[in-house]
Amino acid sequence: MLIKTISEVRAQIKEWKKEGFIVGLVPTMGALHEGHMSLIKKALSSCDKVVVSDFVNPIQFCPGEDLDKYPRTLDEDVKLCESNGVDIVFSPSPEEMYGNETPKTNDFLTYVVPPFFYVNKLCGKSRVGHFDGVCTVVNKLFNIVQPDYAFFGEKDAQQLIIIKKMVKDLNIPVEIVSCPIIREKSGLALSSRNKYLSDEDKKEALVLSKILNNIKTCYQNGVTDVKSLKETAFNYLNDKHELEYLEFADADNLEEKQQADNNTRVFIACKVGGVRLIDNILLNQ
Amino acid sequence: MLIKTISEVRAQIKEWKKEGFIVGLVPTMGALHEGHMSLIKKALSSCDKVVVSDFVNPIQFCPGEDLDKYPRTLDEDVKLCESNGVDIVFSPSPEEMYGNETPKTNDFLTYVVPPFFYVNKLCGKSRVGHFDGVCTVVNKLFNIVQPDYAFFGEKDAQQLIIIKKMVKDLNIPVEIVSCPIIREKSGLALSSRNKYLSDEDKKEALVLSKILNNIKTCYQNGVTDVKSLKETAFNYLNDKHELEYLEFADADNLEEKQQADNNTRVFIACKVGGVRLIDNILLNQ
Repeated sequence: MLIKTISEVRAQIKEWKKEGFIVGLVPTMGALHEGHMSLIKKALSSCDKVVVSDFVNPIQFCPGEDLDKYPRTLDEDVKLCESNGVDIVFSPSPEEMYGNETPKTNDFLTYVVPPFFYVNKLCGKSRVGHFDGVCTVVNKLFNIVQPDYAFFGEKDAQQLIIIKKMVKDLNIPVEIVSCPIIREKSGLALSSRNKYLSDEDKKEALVLSKILNNIKTCYQNGVTDVKSLKETAFNYLNDKHELEYLEFADADNLEEKQQADNNTRVFIACKVGGVRLIDNILLNQ
Repeated sequence: MLIKTISEVRAQIKEWKKEGFIVGLVPTMGALHEGHMSLIKKALSSCDKVVVSDFVNPIQFCPGEDLDKYPRTLDEDVKLCESNGVDIVFSPSPEEMYGNETPKTNDFLTYVVPPFFYVNKLCGKSRVGHFDGVCTVVNKLFNIVQPDYAFFGEKDAQQLIIIKKMVKDLNIPVEIVSCPIIREKSGLALSSRNKYLSDEDKKEALVLSKILNNIKTCYQNGVTDVKSLKETAFNYLNDKHELEYLEFADADNLEEKQQADNNTRVFIACKVGGVRLIDNILLNQ
């Protein structure tokens, strides 16, 4: 069932809560692919009722980013969700979420701001304000849907860690369930932004997973020095790749690592054909 | 019943929700006086179960403020609450709310940050970061107690307006109930900080309510020009009074007024004997 207003979702949730149903939320920006579907299937298997939110959140896009051309496929998304047994697809307009004129800054909107230590690195470094927008919209969705469980993909690992921190810091009564990255057979991590890639770019995009897998192999063969592990990446990079970062950090609190260990996650962001792609891997996996 | 841990409050609330009880929350920093009691009585009269939180929130005090010497009277507070029929007094330690080392900044803690337009004036101007701390702790309390109604006093009018804005912006499922200022017969607005005043200071402290009442009388006699209305204050001020601000703003969105109208609230902050006092009045009341 497609619902576009907050009040209608609330009314439905209220009925469910009365019945004692366990509610799961899968927050998405739509353009659903197999990565999202793995979250949705996990939600369906563990909750009585499942809400998928499908909202391209304007306040998490930074100036110059792809808000306008971000892929929007609501009709297909709804069909896919309904055929899989999702109870509600919640797809509000920006007006429904933020009023007539979406506030672009904190001047006129209350924001949820994650800790500086968690955002001054990795994607947060280039995407200034991005995680403020993410935390704010996820907080709103939690308040609207009041789910028992919410499902996030490890593909956006920094986001997942920041959401978990928000839930802990603000005592939000929800359990965050993290779901592994889904990849094409080639190794490419699924992403809505893969739609922007040409066939040629898609081949070049394999560089991300290749670099990560090679680092993991080296680590498992005994190399723990992060500097040495980083250097192995350069064998894979050519002038089609614009590396933004390759970082090693604690999988729980994002503290930077000089020596890799089993709780180290390796994060990579790289532009291929002008499309910014991210990927990551846990070394002990 | 005094409860000190989040998990115990949650367990009790869960039982109440199962029974379908309407839950009210009165957030306080303790040192309860008749002002708080008016909120508590309103909560008791309109809710099935009432939680009073009693927590001196360290992150809403700015450097140099009175965190350490803020009055703490938990035993008396609990007696007063219990004799009035309050169901839970929730008085967590700072550790229970913020972990072993209370984060003093956004570096390691997720903050709820109210809009700049609402905080760059009145008390927010001198108390930098104060309302971030207020919104963050109130958001946490809402998530812990999940009240249907929460009660705030008009004494802290800027706080009340900011909390209402937070609830709207973040879609928090709670209704905010505002309660009028309670005054001594003399006109002095009740405040936990009045305990700091000597008898002499207490007389001098009447300047706040006198200025506000005089402005209201002038307004009701037809004066609407804010500059003229402000000038009437100077008849009352002497060298015992350190005026911080006297401002006219919209009672809902805090927009500054040049011409007073029925929805104008007049805000005053003034130090007397080194004690910072605030008061306010709605012109159409």
